[in-house]
Amino acid sequence: MAALETLDLSELSWTMMESQERPLHVATLLIYSLPDDAGPEFLKQLVADLRDSTEFVEPFNKRFVRPSVMRPYPVWERDYDLDMEYHVRHLALPHPGGERELGVLIARLHSNRLDFNRPLWEYHVIEGLENNRFAVYFKMHHSLVDGIAGVRMMQRSMSTDPEAVNTPALWSAPVPEELLESNKGISRLRRGLTGMQKSIRSARQVSRQVMEAIRAGGDDRDPFVMPFQAPKTILNGRIKGQRRFATQQYAFSRIRRLSKAAGCTVNDVVLAISSGALRKFLREQNALPGQPLTAGIPVSLRAKDDQGAGSAVSFIMANLATNVADPHRRLETIKASTARAKLMMNGLSRDEIENFTALFMAPSSVQTALNLEGRTSPIFNVTISNVPGPTETLYFRRARLEAMYPVSAVIHGQALNITCYSYAGSLTFGFSGCRDSVPSLQRIAVYAGEALEELERTFLQAEGAEGEEFEAAKTARAGKTRTSKAANE
Amino acid sequence: MAALETLDLSELSWTMMESQERPLHVATLLIYSLPDDAGPEFLKQLVADLRDSTEFVEPFNKRFVRPSVMRPYPVWERDYDLDMEYHVRHLALPHPGGERELGVLIARLHSNRLDFNRPLWEYHVIEGLENNRFAVYFKMHHSLVDGIAGVRMMQRSMSTDPEAVNTPALWSAPVPEELLESNKGISRLRRGLTGMQKSIRSARQVSRQVMEAIRAGGDDRDPFVMPFQAPKTILNGRIKGQRRFATQQYAFSRIRRLSKAAGCTVNDVVLAISSGALRKFLREQNALPGQPLTAGIPVSLRAKDDQGAGSAVSFIMANLATNVADPHRRLETIKASTARAKLMMNGLSRDEIENFTALFMAPSSVQTALNLEGRTSPIFNVTISNVPGPTETLYFRRARLEAMYPVSAVIHGQALNITCYSYAGSLTFGFSGCRDSVPSLQRIAVYAGEALEELERTFLQAEGAEGEEFEAAKTARAGKTRTSKAANE
Repeated sequence: MAALETLDLSELSWTMMESQERPLHVATLLIYSLPDDAGPEFLKQLVADLRDSTEFVEPFNKRFVRPSVMRPYPVWERDYDLDMEYHVRHLALPHPGGERELGVLIARLHSNRLDFNRPLWEYHVIEGLENNRFAVYFKMHHSLVDGIAGVRMMQRSMSTDPEAVNTPALWSAPVPEELLESNKGISRLRRGLTGMQKSIRSARQVSRQVMEAIRAGGDDRDPFVMPFQAPKTILNGRIKGQRRFATQQYAFSRIRRLSKAAGCTVNDVVLAISSGALRKFLREQNALPGQPLTAGIPVSLRAKDDQGAGSAVSFIMANLATNVADPHRRLETIKASTARAKLMMNGLSRDEIENFTALFMAPSSVQTALNLEGRTSPIFNVTISNVPGPTETLYFRRARLEAMYPVSAVIHGQALNITCYSYAGSLTFGFSGCRDSVPSLQRIAVYAGEALEELERTFLQAEGAEGEEFEAAKTARAGKTRTSKAANE
Repeated sequence: MAALETLDLSELSWTMMESQERPLHVATLLIYSLPDDAGPEFLKQLVADLRDSTEFVEPFNKRFVRPSVMRPYPVWERDYDLDMEYHVRHLALPHPGGERELGVLIARLHSNRLDFNRPLWEYHVIEGLENNRFAVYFKMHHSLVDGIAGVRMMQRSMSTDPEAVNTPALWSAPVPEELLESNKGISRLRRGLTGMQKSIRSARQVSRQVMEAIRAGGDDRDPFVMPFQAPKTILNGRIKGQRRFATQQYAFSRIRRLSKAAGCTVNDVVLAISSGALRKFLREQNALPGQPLTAGIPVSLRAKDDQGAGSAVSFIMANLATNVADPHRRLETIKASTARAKLMMNGLSRDEIENFTALFMAPSSVQTALNLEGRTSPIFNVTISNVPGPTETLYFRRARLEAMYPVSAVIHGQALNITCYSYAGSLTFGFSGCRDSVPSLQRIAVYAGEALEELERTFLQAEGAEGEEFEAAKTARAGKTRTSKAANE
């Protein structure tokens, strides 16, 4: 065993907050086509080969060691002798192996906790997916990975060469220098959090300053969303341990066409799709509040005092306008709200951005320490992340990656998470929710499909010249939209 | 919701001791043949039908409610609105769907905890088992069921009629009067434990009396095994959360023939098989202690002062003679040890039996309260249970029950559990163990197969007249012994 490593405050929060009701792992679901010449033993052999890959890059060899009498704080220990039959698993779907059966299995796997006596990851190879496909469900603890880092991990263990047979296992793939570089934002965030740990008192002061800096810029008609302005909804109570999962997939060209027509960002379209889906879902549950729902959205920002090349990972809050029936006005409200939030954040110094980010991206233990919990309103109603992924088609040992879906963690106060990945011309949504708090979560995915259609009708038909494009979009959609039936089970 | 029900001390111990490292559920693995005319939708339809069975007999509707500020003790609440998609699950085995794949899946399912927010059971229908078979893994919390009650539950939801199509779901099957009657032993045990709760002081006194009553009958050469005489082994440390599972199956006629030839009970043969397997396994691990391992064995007893019809479920400890190389002398030692233990127990009054039982069958929280934990030696090394099951072939909605295996719980200090069921001419062993404490658990199952062969060579060939029977046994064995490959994964 190599030297022990102390956890930073972010890692500490994510590991110590882990519980039976609130497992804090995140996952990616990958859908592959089997190579044309794959025999019945292909996946069995793949699993055997993967189990033989026993070189581990960070953080696949990090094992969490609980506090003890001798050492009252937890540490990471390096483990080079992993039980590969535990970490690499071979599963199957029952007949007929459709999206429904896959969604049910993923929801169940995502409800199971990682074993804290081992490095905090599992890699599941799932056979029996219809149309000659298989799936991989890769799960890692949130203390070790976030959405962006997760997608990059995936990417570096795949190849753009359809014939490459020696693509490394995910846990053995070397980390290229430029990826280390691009993780700086996260390292900085961690430093910020570590700073906080040193002095909660100074952190309180910082948070007050940040809040005042934000507040100073606004007036009553300002579309800027303040923290804790969110209404209480069924999505914002305490969660339990079981999960639901549903997916939606779009051709990226549809999203881009719409953003062009509406004069907004791709992110705004993602928010408008989510808003339309949530509005319909909550109305059906007789649970749509009169006030608009708000979303917390991780974004890349460049600070006003930033001379360097890197951008900072930060966080904005947006008005989802779920109280607005008209889809046109709904998207316009969202657009104004995100534009205002980015303007505000760009006016902050890097230190201010980092403190703001640390404050609102950190799990609620930090918020508790800062006396922010226990307010009557949620900080915001739902996290919506849009994680840019690889643009080229990827292959893993001759199996073509068809789609890639995020499966996220939910926490007390936020029983639903919406994350999307872009990959090779498609945009995929993963809806992850608490089984008990979000009944019929599957419908949110279905309504997300309808929400894009509604936006297309509004913004593409409105512009006469775009009529043709709208027809093209409909054609593309017919072949491209796929909705899983996960949440009904 | 109906009235709340307070937990008795046994239920309280089993529920409160539940943890991530030590899930306290027990399960049964059932192997069925598909009806000859079953189409590809047979299991999907079966699962759908089972999910529609929403009548619940005790204890399938009991939900555990945690202590709160308002009510500082846990209670059972009745739940009549179960989430059947959670409780009844449809799974599949990867290709080729052999015993190995099944064992791996069962070990994983058994590592997952039940959701304490719902009634504490799950029913898994597993398709893809080779030779036109499927499996059911039924899991329930140990606070609600023990081995004997579990087998009876199974039995009443099946039929001896191969054509019966309306056999009730396990959770809807009415409980016949005679089964309620035969559970008296357990109720008495529970009363005994409740009595203890009322006065730990009096319980201490009782335990001292029982120990003295036992001690009084013995001398140095006495084969009676005292509690805490067990050597420390790799099976007796603290456990972790992941499990291994392996099985072994014999024709019951082989066991009976051997017991007749050796002049011992069927139970003694079960112990001798376990002993032979453990001896070989521990030697191979360089972990066989010089002192013999001891086993704790649930038995049915009739007390000396018992005038009534019922027998009491109690508990004896036996010398497994794992330090004896000669299989003949090994079985003789076991036989003397169990005979002596039963003689001793039969000399106790019903009250004494019940207190002794309560003391050693209860989970260790009770033992802690009685200051029995923390001694340097384990109470005993391994639990070995032999649960008599149905003798006739059973069917569930036209699917023939081929075999039935117990999947048990393990606890700190006892990382291995050996339980067997008898059913329709066969005797099946389930070996359940902690994944980290018992490496290569599968070998114990393989060695259990070899152990019976060794005993047959010793006792059947020794008697000239039995030579022919031995040959018959070998023939029966060839077709009947089936070993799962579970533990290697």
